[in-house]
Amino acid sequence: MINKYFTQRTSVRSFSSKNVPEEIIEAIVSAAAKAPTCGNMQLYTIIETRKTDLKEKLAEQHFNQPAAATAPVILTICADFNRFSQWCEISDAAPGYNNFHSFIVALTDAVIMAQQITTIAEMEGLGTCYLGTVNYNAENISKLLELPDLVVPVASLAIGYIEKESEPTERLPLNAILHKEAYRHDSEEEIKALFKEKEDFPANKEFVQINKKPNLAHVFTEIRYPKEMNEAVSSSFLELLKKKGFA
Amino acid sequence: MINKYFTQRTSVRSFSSKNVPEEIIEAIVSAAAKAPTCGNMQLYTIIETRKTDLKEKLAEQHFNQPAAATAPVILTICADFNRFSQWCEISDAAPGYNNFHSFIVALTDAVIMAQQITTIAEMEGLGTCYLGTVNYNAENISKLLELPDLVVPVASLAIGYIEKESEPTERLPLNAILHKEAYRHDSEEEIKALFKEKEDFPANKEFVQINKKPNLAHVFTEIRYPKEMNEAVSSSFLELLKKKGFA
Repeated sequence: MINKYFTQRTSVRSFSSKNVPEEIIEAIVSAAAKAPTCGNMQLYTIIETRKTDLKEKLAEQHFNQPAAATAPVILTICADFNRFSQWCEISDAAPGYNNFHSFIVALTDAVIMAQQITTIAEMEGLGTCYLGTVNYNAENISKLLELPDLVVPVASLAIGYIEKESEPTERLPLNAILHKEAYRHDSEEEIKALFKEKEDFPANKEFVQINKKPNLAHVFTEIRYPKEMNEAVSSSFLELLKKKGFA
Repeated sequence: MINKYFTQRTSVRSFSSKNVPEEIIEAIVSAAAKAPTCGNMQLYTIIETRKTDLKEKLAEQHFNQPAAATAPVILTICADFNRFSQWCEISDAAPGYNNFHSFIVALTDAVIMAQQITTIAEMEGLGTCYLGTVNYNAENISKLLELPDLVVPVASLAIGYIEKESEPTERLPLNAILHKEAYRHDSEEEIKALFKEKEDFPANKEFVQINKKPNLAHVFTEIRYPKEMNEAVSSSFLELLKKKGFA
């Protein structure tokens, strides 16, 4: 009964050179704005990048990954308490949103919006891909997009017409992610069983082999998301939150 | 051309007593798991609360707001690096996810998942409502749901059959939230114009009157989201992040 789009979707990393008209992005964002938002404050701003020189500079900040390099449009979704705070000040009301909790609320609003844009764009036949690199160079991206205080980039979406569909990827079994009434504290054997299908997935096995690692977990901890990198991004991102007034 | 569901949806705060079968929640979560996720790590766990005594205790942590009190099911979506880190350890790979950046990545994954569940549930005819109060009592909620280290509740959804549809709410004009190529630094007059429709919206005018405030912004800064409250939640939530190992 559930619309097949949801069970069959995959992210797209290869876009055709065909342009996506501005009106289409506007229609998608306009519809997506009906997504849930905390207190109806709409604590996000979406920056649309399509000018060649700016897009090249932005793609560079995303390490020129194929999705960023080939997409005709990149949307940077920012957590934004600037517009709302300005409105409060104009209204002689004292805003109190320069704190960590307010950042988390705006981040949540922004990610809900990013996902709504993703769903609507994909249902309209476009391809999309989150650029998970948005946090890595968040300060450079902020400068490039001229973001003011209380505005921080938190999600980036490459959008375009699909050049090449991606292969479907595997997911954990449902009982790994859905727990009843309380968190289920699994044993080592149970955790092993939950990840078995992922470890046996052909593309993952190939990944292990190419990288000459003993198993898939090592690919994650040593190549894709190593501790030193996570700690470096923690520092730089926290620094940006302070600079932008969310400390 | 965009599916009318997206432009017409509203959150629901009044649920009928009709039960939502477990199989329906399972089908929704299973389909939603195909949503984008960072590195296909699925850094979330969803706790389903439906037993009366637990649901009452959980609703209490959400200040017994009508959506929490009347819904037959509450889903608490948690940012979860525990399962993935356990799997790394079992695999003799050293996980490096006890840091702030990893929390932000897991939070993003969890909110994407929450929004995908929302969309699928609503398209299936169910009503949903985010309980924005999840951060306020995050530590008590963590205890109630027996959350281990590296697991933090970040989004709560009340789900059920609709007793009473909500009135449609207003949104800011598109140019408030969509900026082209760079952040648009608006003047006071421009900000005023962007919020005019919101201030003129009948339900908001009524809200100002009932609360005897000079204007809508004062309702937000003095009643709904005051500075002292935001700062108190900042402290308690940061404290929880430390306790759970995401410091």
